[in-house]
Parts: sequence; structure tokens; C-alpha cells
Amino acid sequence: MKPSLAKGTRDFSAEEVIKRRYITTILQKNFELFGFQPLETPSFENLATLTGKYGEEGDRLIFKILNSGEFLEKIPSEELSLKNHKNLTPKISEKALRYDLTVPFARFVAMNHGQMVFPYKRYQIQPVWRADRPQKGRFREFYQCDADVVGSTSLWQEVELIQLYLKSFSELKVPVKIHINNRKILSGLAEYAEITDKLIDFTVALDKLDKIGKDGVVKEMLEKGIRQNAIDMVDFLFEEKQTNEKTLNILKQKFETSATGKSGVEELEFVLKNCAEIGIENQLVFDITLARGLDYYTGAIFEVKADGVGIGSIGGGGRYDNLTEVFGVKNIPGIGISFGLDRIYLVMEELGVFPENAVQNVRYLFANYGDAEAVEAMKLIAELRQNGTSAELYPENSKLKKQFTYAEKKNISEIVFLGAEEIENGSVTVKNINTGEQQTLAKDDFLKI
Amino acid sequence: MKPSLAKGTRDFSAEEVIKRRYITTILQKNFELFGFQPLETPSFENLATLTGKYGEEGDRLIFKILNSGEFLEKIPSEELSLKNHKNLTPKISEKALRYDLTVPFARFVAMNHGQMVFPYKRYQIQPVWRADRPQKGRFREFYQCDADVVGSTSLWQEVELIQLYLKSFSELKVPVKIHINNRKILSGLAEYAEITDKLIDFTVALDKLDKIGKDGVVKEMLEKGIRQNAIDMVDFLFEEKQTNEKTLNILKQKFETSATGKSGVEELEFVLKNCAEIGIENQLVFDITLARGLDYYTGAIFEVKADGVGIGSIGGGGRYDNLTEVFGVKNIPGIGISFGLDRIYLVMEELGVFPENAVQNVRYLFANYGDAEAVEAMKLIAELRQNGTSAELYPENSKLKKQFTYAEKKNISEIVFLGAEEIENGSVTVKNINTGEQQTLAKDDFLKI
Repeated sequence: MKPSLAKGTRDFSAEEVIKRRYITTILQKNFELFGFQPLETPSFENLATLTGKYGEEGDRLIFKILNSGEFLEKIPSEELSLKNHKNLTPKISEKALRYDLTVPFARFVAMNHGQMVFPYKRYQIQPVWRADRPQKGRFREFYQCDADVVGSTSLWQEVELIQLYLKSFSELKVPVKIHINNRKILSGLAEYAEITDKLIDFTVALDKLDKIGKDGVVKEMLEKGIRQNAIDMVDFLFEEKQTNEKTLNILKQKFETSATGKSGVEELEFVLKNCAEIGIENQLVFDITLARGLDYYTGAIFEVKADGVGIGSIGGGGRYDNLTEVFGVKNIPGIGISFGLDRIYLVMEELGVFPENAVQNVRYLFANYGDAEAVEAMKLIAELRQNGTSAELYPENSKLKKQFTYAEKKNISEIVFLGAEEIENGSVTVKNINTGEQQTLAKDDFLKI
Repeated sequence: MKPSLAKGTRDFSAEEVIKRRYITTILQKNFELFGFQPLETPSFENLATLTGKYGEEGDRLIFKILNSGEFLEKIPSEELSLKNHKNLTPKISEKALRYDLTVPFARFVAMNHGQMVFPYKRYQIQPVWRADRPQKGRFREFYQCDADVVGSTSLWQEVELIQLYLKSFSELKVPVKIHINNRKILSGLAEYAEITDKLIDFTVALDKLDKIGKDGVVKEMLEKGIRQNAIDMVDFLFEEKQTNEKTLNILKQKFETSATGKSGVEELEFVLKNCAEIGIENQLVFDITLARGLDYYTGAIFEVKADGVGIGSIGGGGRYDNLTEVFGVKNIPGIGISFGLDRIYLVMEELGVFPENAVQNVRYLFANYGDAEAVEAMKLIAELRQNGTSAELYPENSKLKKQFTYAEKKNISEIVFLGAEEIENGSVTVKNINTGEQQTLAKDDFLKI
């Protein structure tokens, strides 16, 4: 049997693991500097915890785990013969793989809110799984890196999460802009144009302006049953990008009768003003067409785009009014942001900003001259490792040429020779493969290099 | 709906995540010092990659993932009505969750051996999933931490992996003994007693000597059809523990006609002798009753036990002749060891050897006096974070008592006051909650603390 990877999955080589770890280590450090603490939830949840939280499409894309044992035993044969996969799924599958980090987090908060200190700030870096059709850059297993604060509606958290994004991407050497909007502004526009019943269709179409242009958006809106005169009322959305001030003034006029819209503008102004105060406004872009897909956002929404790299958004998030209501626990508002590890990786590769020494190769390969010499090598290797220097003995007493080839292919640049002569003299010969330079040192001096 | 965890799974709180990370960081560092490089494989594999590799019991315990979409469509109704779950499983499930790290590693090597440099040393720290009945200390999702070298039969690797165990456990402050045996010795004994057809029954029973005593082992052997006179021939196994030398001498006599047995003794002697040479023999225990369950071991076998803690083995491994034969690639021998993260965690808790400051709490909480003061706080917080000091603003302008309570519950010991007066004076007031001590400092001096 010729083995293969499951569709949409990947092995990560040493280099990839270490580069990914480079990213997550920086994120982790910043999460903790900002007062977020780690949480890890299980890879699978009860199916009922996940279903109904991601829309119909999402439900389809959740990976379900088959019950163990005689999973068909209790199902009547007549029901089986109907082959209704939707009805049968929950009867043969009680568990499902994590689809995102937010719903398991909500489940955790709903179960533990009695003992928690609010505002509760957690971060979580774990894989999620989706039965998407695999395609370039889209995988069925991928990591999410989320930070959320729940239990407070303070708008300072918007400011703080923008700082967190900017500090992290600055350290990753990825120049970014953070696009920001507010769901209340979009709701206000829908109220103003009297299409509140079409709010989702309106925002979904608007979100595509970048990709399909004004004509495409208008066409989609008309198809979804939004009247032409409503579209005319929000025509300013399609104009050339205005200054923030001008756009906000237009909105204020339109929102004279929309409390929601007004409140959205105020919230946005607070964030813009205070980001300006602390000197980070030039990386912030008020983008009135930003909508984001997830229904549960209710206030600020964010999307991070890398400057000059056509890889789409590398992060996103927003404020929600109630994280845990679906689990019967009310009044836990919050805000969260997510870093897209895979896309950040792609951007960093494209920009060439991974540190060169990401993969720490072994420093010394000890040549193997046979068991008597190998004992002495092993003693010295143990001392090196004790000092934090990586080293290994070539395991076989092979021809030196073969041992050299191994060192070259593993990018080990220094070979140590500890033969009978060196052992007798208490010395060590070290050869740098790259430069060809070779020197014989007293053992103690070698340990001090 | 009241949410719950799926059976046999756990959430990990900040403290648990950080303590687990403390362990894996030490393991990771040592793996790399010893020249192992990281590998990560996907959480799920094609079902066919996993089935048949772990015995019948193992096959049952593999978590299978239900196919997406209309998974019953192509199955004839007659076949469905038979409800034969074994036949139906592979038809409705193509993928399954990782059951251990070894088979996915073998799959990786089988797919990539053409481009690999041998000996290939990889480590892997990832979760695995088993549909075991959950019980105290046994979970359905748990981490394995494995290091394997493939492509060489050098016995120096046995010595090196023993060093790796000892160095790692020494840094974790867990005193251990490494029990060692060799499968060839067990095979030799079966040859000597003429019960080679009962080798597995023989070793499985012998492995239980610690738990069920001589009488129990003999009873089990008889039940499995091992003759009394064969048992008499290996009676020395049940005697009080001898010195290694004496046991090896007895074995040598018995193995006069068993090439396998002889070779097992020689291998073991090599390992014991060279461990003595490099001064680590006193943590090594030759345990002739050690058998380990996994069939694929063919040479040295290891098990790690923590001194004076009744938690069973906290690590194990051994040598195998062919990692990838099952995937059609021959002649890739190897040796591997595994660290049991959950049990190591339990032992370390029992011994109280986790560092006290495992959880890094936030250093400063800035009291919130309202938006005007908060802007100044946010600026100062940004500077602190830039210096690597964690700090946060209490997000709401609440009563100070409430803000203090938050700091106490989150174990933040220092509160910073930056009110109108401090802002005017360019100063900062810092109060240590634990000592009650309070001081006012110039802002620049505060940043230098």
C-alpha cells in the first residue's frame, strides 16, 4: 500500500515547524504582555455544542466523529433505508471537531462564568478543522490564534486590540493597515435606506466592493431584492474614498433619526480619536464597506491587510454583544481578534522577513572512529549539551566521506575529530566544513568556544 | 441548552497550559540539543493508513471521521439493513484521528525517504486520540512527545536516548530509573524453553510480575497453554532480583544454542558497559521481566519510572527493525522513545517541582479614572510593553474598590495610579497590594524599575 496524506492536510517539516513557532512565539509573548492568559479546549466537542452556531453552510463543514462500537444498532432499519443523512448524522455521531475557537470559548465561559474574574482575557492558539473543498492556500486543518476580552463593553478594548495587532505585526516585520468599521453604522445605513429586513444581503454585497466593483455590488443588491431607490440613498458609499472626517459628517446627517447609526459613529470616533492620541492612527483605515461575514458581530469590526501583498486579510475580529447567550448565559459582551497563521506565514515568506537562523542546526558532528573513541566523544558531547550547545555523534563507524556528507546535508558546519591521538593529548580537532579551516585545541579551550 | 465537555476531554486553564508548556519546552530544548528536528503531521490520516497497525483492540479505539455530504448514498439498502458496523465503517468514513505518533511518522518516512538524510532524527509533540473508556488519569485526548532515529542500527543510539531521558528528567527535577531489557533476550528465553509459538503470551504474562506476582504469572502462562516444564525452565526469572552480572551469566548459559538470545545479551552488555563509561549506569535497571506491549519492538526496550511515586511508567520506547515495511518501504530500522506528558505532569505535581512562578501574572494594573487620564495611561502602558513588561488598563471607570478586587483576583500585585495630579507633575503613583507600600515616582524613574 502506497501511503498518502488525507486530502487538504499537510506535514510540516522542521523548517516549517520552526518558522510557524517563530510567529506563534511572538504572538504568545504579546498576548501575555497585554494581560491575556492562555486557554486550551479539547479538539472535539459534543456535536450539539457546535451545530447551529455557524449557519447552514458551517454545519455542513463541521467534521463529525463516528460513534464507536455498534453505532447502527439502535436505528430502525426503515429509518436507515431512507438514507436521510441529515437525520441520521446526530444518531451515529455525538462528537465533532473544533470548527473555530470562539464557540468552544463560549462553551467554556458558559460552564465556568461563576468562578471567573471579569473582564476575562484569554488567548488561544490551536488548530481547527473544516470540511472545505481543499484549494491553493486553503486547508482542512489550520491554526487560529485568538485573543478575546469578555465581560466589559469599554471601548478602550478596541484601542488595546488595535495596539496588540500593530505591536505584533511590527515585530513580525509585516507592514499592515487595520481596516475598521462598525456594525452599527451598517445597521444605521440599512435603517436610513429602509432596508433593515435586508441588512445581511446589503452588507454581504457591500463587502465585495473591492472585488467586484460598484456595478457588481449594485447588481447583487438588486438581485437580492433591494430596491433601486434604497441603493441610490447610499450612493455615497461608492464614491472615491473620502477623508474620515467627511465620511463621518455625511453619516451624521443621515443618522439623524437612527439611534443605532449615531451610536456606531460615536464609537468609531472614540476609537479613531484615541488611537490618534497614542500615535497609531496612521495605520488605521476607516473602511465603511468592511462588513465581515460573521453574524455575531454587533459593534467594531476589524480586518488586517498587509501592505502591498495580495494575500487578502491576515487577521480579523470584532465586538459582540453576547458570547454565551446561545448556551443560556446572558450579558457577557466581549471583543476578540484573530491572527491567521497560514496567511501570515505566506506574507512573511513573500516579504522575506523570517530570520535567517530560524532553523537551529546542530552545531557539532563528532566523527565516529569506533567504539573506543566514541565513548570519549559521548562524554564530551554530554558536556557540550550541558552548556546548551547542540552536538551529536555520527552513530556508525562509517567512512569519513559518508560522515562528512551527513554533516553537509544536515547543515552542520563543524565536525569534531576525537581520534586516538587527540584522546591521548587531551585535545580536539575541529574542522569548519564551509571555510575548510581546521584547528586542534585543548579540550578545555574547546569547551569554552 | 446547558453545555458540557465531550466525555474524556478536558479544558486546560492558564495555569495548566503554562505548566504543560514548561514541560514541553524543556523536552523540546533537549530534543534539539541532541540533534532531533521537529516534525508535525496532520491530526487526521486516511483511515487505511491507520487500520491494522495497532491490533484488533487498537482498530476499535481509533476515532473515525464521518464522510461529509450524503455519506449513505452509494451503499445498497440491503447492506445497510445488515447493520454490520465493521463492514460499513470504511464505507462511510475515510479519515481517522491520529492514534499515536509512530504510524504517521512511518507514513511520512515512507512518502519522503527518497529526499531524506539518514540517520534521520525527528521529534514530535502532538496530541493523539483514543476511544478508550475514560477513567481517572486516562483521557481520550492526550499529548505524546516522541523522539526517533531511523536509518541506523548503531547501539550508540540506545546510549544517546538513555542520556536524553536522564538529562530531561533531571531538568524537570523528577528522579527516575530507566528499566531496560531486550526483546531478543525474551525471544531467546522462548527458544530455550521451546515455546516460541507462545512468545507473546509469555512476554505479556511476564510483564505483569510486578502487579500479580509469581503465582499470578504462572497461572496466566498455564492458562495460555504454556507447559509447566517450560515454566520450570525459566524459574530463575521469578527469583529475587540478582545483580546484572549474575543474571547475564545465567542467560549466557541458557543461550548457548540461541543466536537470538546471545545477540540480545551482547546488545544489552554494550549499552550497560557504555552507560557505565559515561557515568550514567546508576539510573539504569536491567529488568528481565520488562516486555512492553507493542509488537513492533525487536531490540532494546525501555520504560521510565519515577522514584517513589506510584504512577507507573512516565515514558517508554524501544528499537524496531522496520518502521515502514507496512507501507512497502523496507530496511528502515530505528529506535524511539516517548515521554508521557500527562503522567509527568501528575508526578511533578505530586513532587511539587513546578517552578513557583510558572504562571506569569500581569505586572501592573493601571487604575481607570476616566477617558482623559486613560489616554495617558495607554501611552505609558505601550512603553512598558515595549520594554517587555506586562501591563493593562482596567477597562472601565469603575469604583476603585472594584478595580482593586480585579487586581487581587488576577494576582496582579502592583496598581498604578495616573490621575490628574500625576499627569500634571509627570509622575506615577505605584501601590503594592501585598505590602501596602505606595510610592510616587517621576515617570522616567518608573519606566526604569
